[in-house]
Amino acid sequence: MKAFVMKEIGHVGFVDKPLPRPGPLDAVVRTTNALICTSDSHTVKGGIGPRENLTLGHEAVGVVHETGDQVRGFQPGDRVLVGAITPDWGDLASQNGHPSQSGGPLGGFKFANIKDGVFAEYFHVNEADANLAKIPDEVPDEMAVYCADMLSTGFMGAEKGDIPIGGTVAVLAQGPVGLMATAGARLRGAGRIIGIESVPSRQKLARFYGADEIVDFTTEDVVERVLALTDGQGVDTAIEALGADATFQTAIKITKPGGTVSNTGYYGEGEFVRIPRVEWGVGMADKTIATGLCPGGRLRMERLLRVLAGKRLDPTPMTTHTFHFDEMERAFEVSDKKLEDVVKVLIRF
Amino acid sequence: MKAFVMKEIGHVGFVDKPLPRPGPLDAVVRTTNALICTSDSHTVKGGIGPRENLTLGHEAVGVVHETGDQVRGFQPGDRVLVGAITPDWGDLASQNGHPSQSGGPLGGFKFANIKDGVFAEYFHVNEADANLAKIPDEVPDEMAVYCADMLSTGFMGAEKGDIPIGGTVAVLAQGPVGLMATAGARLRGAGRIIGIESVPSRQKLARFYGADEIVDFTTEDVVERVLALTDGQGVDTAIEALGADATFQTAIKITKPGGTVSNTGYYGEGEFVRIPRVEWGVGMADKTIATGLCPGGRLRMERLLRVLAGKRLDPTPMTTHTFHFDEMERAFEVSDKKLEDVVKVLIRF
Amino acid sequence: MKAFVMKEIGHVGFVDKPLPRPGPLDAVVRTTNALICTSDSHTVKGGIGPRENLTLGHEAVGVVHETGDQVRGFQPGDRVLVGAITPDWGDLASQNGHPSQSGGPLGGFKFANIKDGVFAEYFHVNEADANLAKIPDEVPDEMAVYCADMLSTGFMGAEKGDIPIGGTVAVLAQGPVGLMATAGARLRGAGRIIGIESVPSRQKLARFYGADEIVDFTTEDVVERVLALTDGQGVDTAIEALGADATFQTAIKITKPGGTVSNTGYYGEGEFVRIPRVEWGVGMADKTIATGLCPGGRLRMERLLRVLAGKRLDPTPMTTHTFHFDEMERAFEVSDKKLEDVVKVLIRF
Amino acid sequence: MKAFVMKEIGHVGFVDKPLPRPGPLDAVVRTTNALICTSDSHTVKGGIGPRENLTLGHEAVGVVHETGDQVRGFQPGDRVLVGAITPDWGDLASQNGHPSQSGGPLGGFKFANIKDGVFAEYFHVNEADANLAKIPDEVPDEMAVYCADMLSTGFMGAEKGDIPIGGTVAVLAQGPVGLMATAGARLRGAGRIIGIESVPSRQKLARFYGADEIVDFTTEDVVERVLALTDGQGVDTAIEALGADATFQTAIKITKPGGTVSNTGYYGEGEFVRIPRVEWGVGMADKTIATGLCPGGRLRMERLLRVLAGKRLDPTPMTTHTFHFDEMERAFEVSDKKLEDVVKVLIRF
Repeated sequence: MKAFVMKEIGHVGFVDKPLPRPGPLDAVVRTTNALICTSDSHTVKGGIGPRENLTLGHEAVGVVHETGDQVRGFQPGDRVLVGAITPDWGDLASQNGHPSQSGGPLGGFKFANIKDGVFAEYFHVNEADANLAKIPDEVPDEMAVYCADMLSTGFMGAEKGDIPIGGTVAVLAQGPVGLMATAGARLRGAGRIIGIESVPSRQKLARFYGADEIVDFTTEDVVERVLALTDGQGVDTAIEALGADATFQTAIKITKPGGTVSNTGYYGEGEFVRIPRVEWGVGMADKTIATGLCPGGRLRMERLLRVLAGKRLDPTPMTTHTFHFDEMERAFEVSDKKLEDVVKVLIRF
Repeated sequence: MKAFVMKEIGHVGFVDKPLPRPGPLDAVVRTTNALICTSDSHTVKGGIGPRENLTLGHEAVGVVHETGDQVRGFQPGDRVLVGAITPDWGDLASQNGHPSQSGGPLGGFKFANIKDGVFAEYFHVNEADANLAKIPDEVPDEMAVYCADMLSTGFMGAEKGDIPIGGTVAVLAQGPVGLMATAGARLRGAGRIIGIESVPSRQKLARFYGADEIVDFTTEDVVERVLALTDGQGVDTAIEALGADATFQTAIKITKPGGTVSNTGYYGEGEFVRIPRVEWGVGMADKTIATGLCPGGRLRMERLLRVLAGKRLDPTPMTTHTFHFDEMERAFEVSDKKLEDVVKVLIRF
Repeated sequence: MKAFVMKEIGHVGFVDKPLPRPGPLDAVVRTTNALICTSDSHTVKGGIGPRENLTLGHEAVGVVHETGDQVRGFQPGDRVLVGAITPDWGDLASQNGHPSQSGGPLGGFKFANIKDGVFAEYFHVNEADANLAKIPDEVPDEMAVYCADMLSTGFMGAEKGDIPIGGTVAVLAQGPVGLMATAGARLRGAGRIIGIESVPSRQKLARFYGADEIVDFTTEDVVERVLALTDGQGVDTAIEALGADATFQTAIKITKPGGTVSNTGYYGEGEFVRIPRVEWGVGMADKTIATGLCPGGRLRMERLLRVLAGKRLDPTPMTTHTFHFDEMERAFEVSDKKLEDVVKVLIRF
Repeated sequence: MKAFVMKEIGHVGFVDKPLPRPGPLDAVVRTTNALICTSDSHTVKGGIGPRENLTLGHEAVGVVHETGDQVRGFQPGDRVLVGAITPDWGDLASQNGHPSQSGGPLGGFKFANIKDGVFAEYFHVNEADANLAKIPDEVPDEMAVYCADMLSTGFMGAEKGDIPIGGTVAVLAQGPVGLMATAGARLRGAGRIIGIESVPSRQKLARFYGADEIVDFTTEDVVERVLALTDGQGVDTAIEALGADATFQTAIKITKPGGTVSNTGYYGEGEFVRIPRVEWGVGMADKTIATGLCPGGRLRMERLLRVLAGKRLDPTPMTTHTFHFDEMERAFEVSDKKLEDVVKVLIRF
């Protein structure tokens, strides 16, 4: 079968690979739709170290092709979604409530990391009964595929932010995860949502997904402006959705005492991420810093699909580009180089 | 001044009372709008025992008339909302995170209970800095007044129900509190909301506020139907918004193991409220029963007002009737006897 | 192999059974020590319905005899503990944080329920990597075996009771689960623990495990006495460790507004468990009722073993009787009929 | 009356001041015992900016001398404890569950900060009903005084660390707050507690208060050693009880994915406190960073006193030095310069 891989650091392309086979608890899925993620670019640049001919991609939906002999809940032909994170559910970290950390830090992240990803005609899913979810008829594939990572990660930012109904929230950066954090804040009942973003097309999407105010960090002092918008108090919750030291610092500064900084960003550079000492209340202002990695698993996916089936949210306006799998090289370039105001690139198989 | 009172059990009417005066921390508010609550009927029927010429009402907005000399945050002329519950914030129960229980069980409930209520030209508010909230310009009085009890209590049902994003929720009874519990479930991100209600006009409002499905208990078996709607699992959260033994039992039965029954209802009758033993998992199915009393206080009111200012919700379609304060006797009769498909009766001063 | 079974409702005895074999993820354990539980008596009396030649028992330690080919963390010869509850970790309920409810209400309870229990020379364990725990050298078998159910269930009562450091706790009934709830309350930092118990030997154990006060319900009014001991406030947390309607009612009555009733009891009788309406604050006093079923799994067992290894607690004074497996019939009779001031009966193999 | 003050940055000494008078809600207390805190040294060095003749001290017990006319629960002659933090209970931050942040970041910290402290013959207490607690007869003054800050802050470290029963905990630095964090971890049921400390007398106290292992950072690599002690997993909870960038970094490194770093330290230096990026899991390992400021208030103090009355803990072995108030200059020098293996200095009046 055809697979789009990272040949080595800095190089991508197609290779031919054998069809994967499931172990007793696993499934193999025929891919129908996938999305390209910024993480794919991080990986290709060496963010997780060298890899050779590793299939890229971790956001996909498809049709069950084959199941292991102990799989009970799925059978060939089922239209399914699989989370970007596919935990080992018996692991101690999962038992501890942190399945994304099963098998070690970030260990639930298997696709395009410790095994082949989803940019291939078929892909393998561990613990199928626990990691697949059936897609309801009313949710099309190109919508469902957003649950795998974008909704799950963005909503996690809102959930870990512990937003009270009517609370104030700032979301720092309105890329696809930030947009879904904005939508997630809205879904949790935030009373006022401030989106931090400079790109006009993303500002527009931010408003679509629920931002009440937009602050453009290229023309305004974000800390000053957010404090002004919140009577000098700061927000209940700041969601960092970029993964940059400077943005993280801003998040601490604009959060009120007793508030939460919820991180969804991947920090790819530097030895440290720095907390501004004074604005952190010299370690005593009760500002919690929460982090996490995209929740996966069947229950999570079923709940996210219910959000779509219930018409609470339409993620498809984030699809700025659509390519066929054959055009993967161009598709990857558009996403990687952030060409043409790209937000998300959908791949059809 | 003119006050509408419970003269004795079973009798209401107008009396003339002296204008209240504030203590050092208090305020006196000139009433502009109020809502009649089912609790007012309970009180008149003797639900809290005998009272003599007690001013009724606990849902109101108005304009600050006078403040005590230690009040810092409010001054005469401020347009304000006051929660139905006005806690003593220094009390041990408040320090313990349960301000509605300050001063004893349900002790935060002062209006029309241990002191005169708000159905008068002026009313008294304890701890004004902590219990009043300024109403934003963009929120009209007749909308803001819904925060005092309806939004606060209904949303509490959703909040204590610990609803996950995409979770399933049933709200049992779609009176005004149930409708706001429905809206609250939607605000917390529920993926599927089932409203239990038989009255067509309330069914319609339930859909308006976010119910995806309506189950009519007069024509369907609620337990069977809810289980059918949730793949036999039961809901994550059942919100009891009536206050009846039978409804409470249903709530237990339709909640999945590990789920939450969140109570907002006032149980006015009988020695016991009964838990169905087997469906409760013989005490071991991890079904939590949570209860509470309408949260009050400035922070809560500010957050609820933010929900309205942010246009997340419009409670005014619940106003089926509007009367002037002079017409209070007829207004009370409509509410008390549930005439003319009444949902809420607004009183203008 | 020899197994001690429930032949039919009301009858127990030995039968010979074939040695169990593990599936790919499972293990078979050679039993070395076991404890008899009150639940075994419930089962024999028909509490879970009819069974034929079902091996009894769910509290055991042993030595790994054989493992399935996918088991990674254990091998024959390992000295191991297995929780009474052995969840399916990939199940939706487990993903939802309620592994004891995996596979349906109370579905994690497999031993002596939906498969053979541990009163046999060998027993089978599902998902061995996730459900077994190695016993540290410093913890003897006859101590470790208490983790399987007694510590896990009793501590759960304290944990779900949400006890604040310095809080007040009442534990209703000081059987072995109640005693471990008392110890658990002490481990969570309760400032004052009131044990409700009438049997002198159990009163003595209650004091040993941390009760500061004992209330004998046969000679005192429990509600009056607990209120008197808590300045009329009631306790922060009441742990029901009996499973009786009357005790449950008392638990509600002695809990302060905002407090928690935490249930560990199994309710075996009646259509209803009844909440006293007025003392429950007519559904509005913020008294939470929490329930659960003995937590199982490797992580839980490892943590409980750490409590023992760290010498925080010695459960062995609860062992009032010790028998060899050959004497199982007499052992069961002592436990079942509560002879000779029995608390727990240890079985050696 | 006589008061021991910070005359200006770097200078302390006695001055004479008028007796304070209570406002309507306040009390004036005659001091009987006090403790010197490291924070007093920070303050004198200019940590909170310049002050002129500000009375120092925030840990004290005494006897009520005078009460405001609205105080209900206390009267002259009552033996009382007052928390180091005396919140404004009606403030929005208090309503939000963060009373130590009332009135702004760290705003509950009033003594020796925004008003005179307790190193005087008499001191003033705001909101007496909410901020004082009566001392039980069985708790002597010199023991009760430890509740004001040491127990409250140290226990907070354990509480915010979200320690599971049987969990693993490291406490970084075993000064008096670290020692009480160690005791707090023990009170919450930690199964293994690792104290990081190099001073022999403090190591000994650490073992007394519950540390199972001691790691001496001057002779061992703390990260290596803690990982070795926890099977390479890291601890569930790391409590930073020093307030140093390097220690904070170590805390992040030794915490397992999904674990919590709970901060009690005051960070007095540098622009930043730095998170080690990779060991923080590039922002995705679910390691929560929690902070806070010593909880105050009557409920907290009553609970801490109950811990002492119930003989769960004896803090008095931390009293290495006792002086009379007349000897305050020498006493302060001993504490400030950490002379003679000082842990805590008790002042008698």
